[in-house]
Amino acid sequence: MTNPTDFNLWSHDICNSVASFLDQHLPSAQLPPQRLHEAMRYATLQGGKRVRPLLCFAAGELSQAPASSLTVVACSVELIHAYSLVHDDLPAMDNDVLRRGKPTCHIQFGEAVAILTGDVLQTQAFEWLSDPSFFPNQPERQLELVHQLSYASGAQGMAGGQALDLESTQQPVSLAQIKSMHFKKTGALIRASLLMGAACGDPLPVEQQRALCDFAEALGLAFQVVDDCLDAEMDTATLGKTAGKDAAANKATTVGIMGLSKAKGFAQELHAAARQALAVLGPRAARLEDLTHFIINRRS
Amino acid sequence: MTNPTDFNLWSHDICNSVASFLDQHLPSAQLPPQRLHEAMRYATLQGGKRVRPLLCFAAGELSQAPASSLTVVACSVELIHAYSLVHDDLPAMDNDVLRRGKPTCHIQFGEAVAILTGDVLQTQAFEWLSDPSFFPNQPERQLELVHQLSYASGAQGMAGGQALDLESTQQPVSLAQIKSMHFKKTGALIRASLLMGAACGDPLPVEQQRALCDFAEALGLAFQVVDDCLDAEMDTATLGKTAGKDAAANKATTVGIMGLSKAKGFAQELHAAARQALAVLGPRAARLEDLTHFIINRRS
Repeated sequence: MTNPTDFNLWSHDICNSVASFLDQHLPSAQLPPQRLHEAMRYATLQGGKRVRPLLCFAAGELSQAPASSLTVVACSVELIHAYSLVHDDLPAMDNDVLRRGKPTCHIQFGEAVAILTGDVLQTQAFEWLSDPSFFPNQPERQLELVHQLSYASGAQGMAGGQALDLESTQQPVSLAQIKSMHFKKTGALIRASLLMGAACGDPLPVEQQRALCDFAEALGLAFQVVDDCLDAEMDTATLGKTAGKDAAANKATTVGIMGLSKAKGFAQELHAAARQALAVLGPRAARLEDLTHFIINRRS
Repeated sequence: MTNPTDFNLWSHDICNSVASFLDQHLPSAQLPPQRLHEAMRYATLQGGKRVRPLLCFAAGELSQAPASSLTVVACSVELIHAYSLVHDDLPAMDNDVLRRGKPTCHIQFGEAVAILTGDVLQTQAFEWLSDPSFFPNQPERQLELVHQLSYASGAQGMAGGQALDLESTQQPVSLAQIKSMHFKKTGALIRASLLMGAACGDPLPVEQQRALCDFAEALGLAFQVVDDCLDAEMDTATLGKTAGKDAAANKATTVGIMGLSKAKGFAQELHAAARQALAVLGPRAARLEDLTHFIINRRS
């Protein structure tokens, strides 16, 4: 691990680059349709931990990827994440009123605008990734990035996981089913952040590519297990979103099926598995190691 | 114009190719998440006029584009269209219960599944367009297609037009504003169908490219003006969707601002403008001419 000050500076710089790119390239709230543009900015520029952009940049260190490409990729992944939050918070889905300590998008702008906002945030991600001016003379790389992100976000990935989550409230589910849901709902986009970040640089040797996939799998699941634990034990003010809602909504979670203490142990096991995969990746994986520590030990 | 039997056979074949590709390549309703997959199929395989796929194939004749590429492009555009219908029909948007003579997606599957269905239909479009197995060794062409479709669908295109449409019910609007809204809401995807179809083949000479854009602009607006007229004068059974809902929802339409008779005249003017643009494109534009006639004179 690098020292904490160094890690904080590194992540602070990336969060600034991401916010600055989003601010500069999202449509202006002065231009029509103003409310839609305003809502797109509201859903993406109100903070958030920027975990996926950080993962993208950290994986980019493995392949010595240029920051210019990583910024576009990180912002595109962040748009997909933001769209999923806007839609998941809708009354027909998780019906939540609070996100990052602020009113959710539909509370602030109304449901119709919130639905459209999620829709166009998704579209904007693919528009950026396919914009040749952001990746001069690299059509094959861009195409691969579009394909990775679309696969990770769709019916076989993030949105499919959300559908499984909805179904899970209506029937008893096994740990294997919860894992499969988490792999899709959270894991797919985390995996894509890592693989897309690495894909912005030199090709990785096959054994490193495989280790990165193993790492992604362990980290994606760990992220969601920690999320389950935080929802069960933290208060709303600390989380910046409604706490205890998994149990209230009868959601299938690792805490629900194995209890809080065992779920915490499971997160530690996954942390160990993630570190084991990182060992194969050598010294360039230092940022990924820091980030893993940060994700496992976060308090919100 | 070609003879009507020939046109009917041509369009029938294309509709079959599109339905067959969708059926083959959309995720199976036997695999989890089953309800989501079932809803994706429900929203795309229940008929519809397939206007955008037909436009795509007709424009492909200008550049002698291969049917294999046109099928993927046509189906991707159709997915974007289908996603927009699923979301537009939601209670928070147009709140409609009937589409193509059947219950709308949220009536059939519930709102949560309908929101996710629209989301993943959009994602699936970009996944297909970026799949290298569908366009062997053509990464630049694929990237251009992804970029065209994303631009046409997002905040500057179709979804932005829907946002303007929502805003229009709350304030008086001018004909210029209605035109701008229609250009985005309906025109952008019609234009993309045409340009993407042509982009699957040999590059068009500059003057033909320009004529195709002029044609797209006239046809896109004409399509929506005819839609406004049909909504005002037809009954629900004929349309297969709720009639008279523009006036009921206080929607800004050309009929609302100029009256039915003048709106019909406006559609005829646009038809003339479209035919004028087609004249530049020569005999290969015969299918586009047929289609324009079909679109202007349709009764549902």
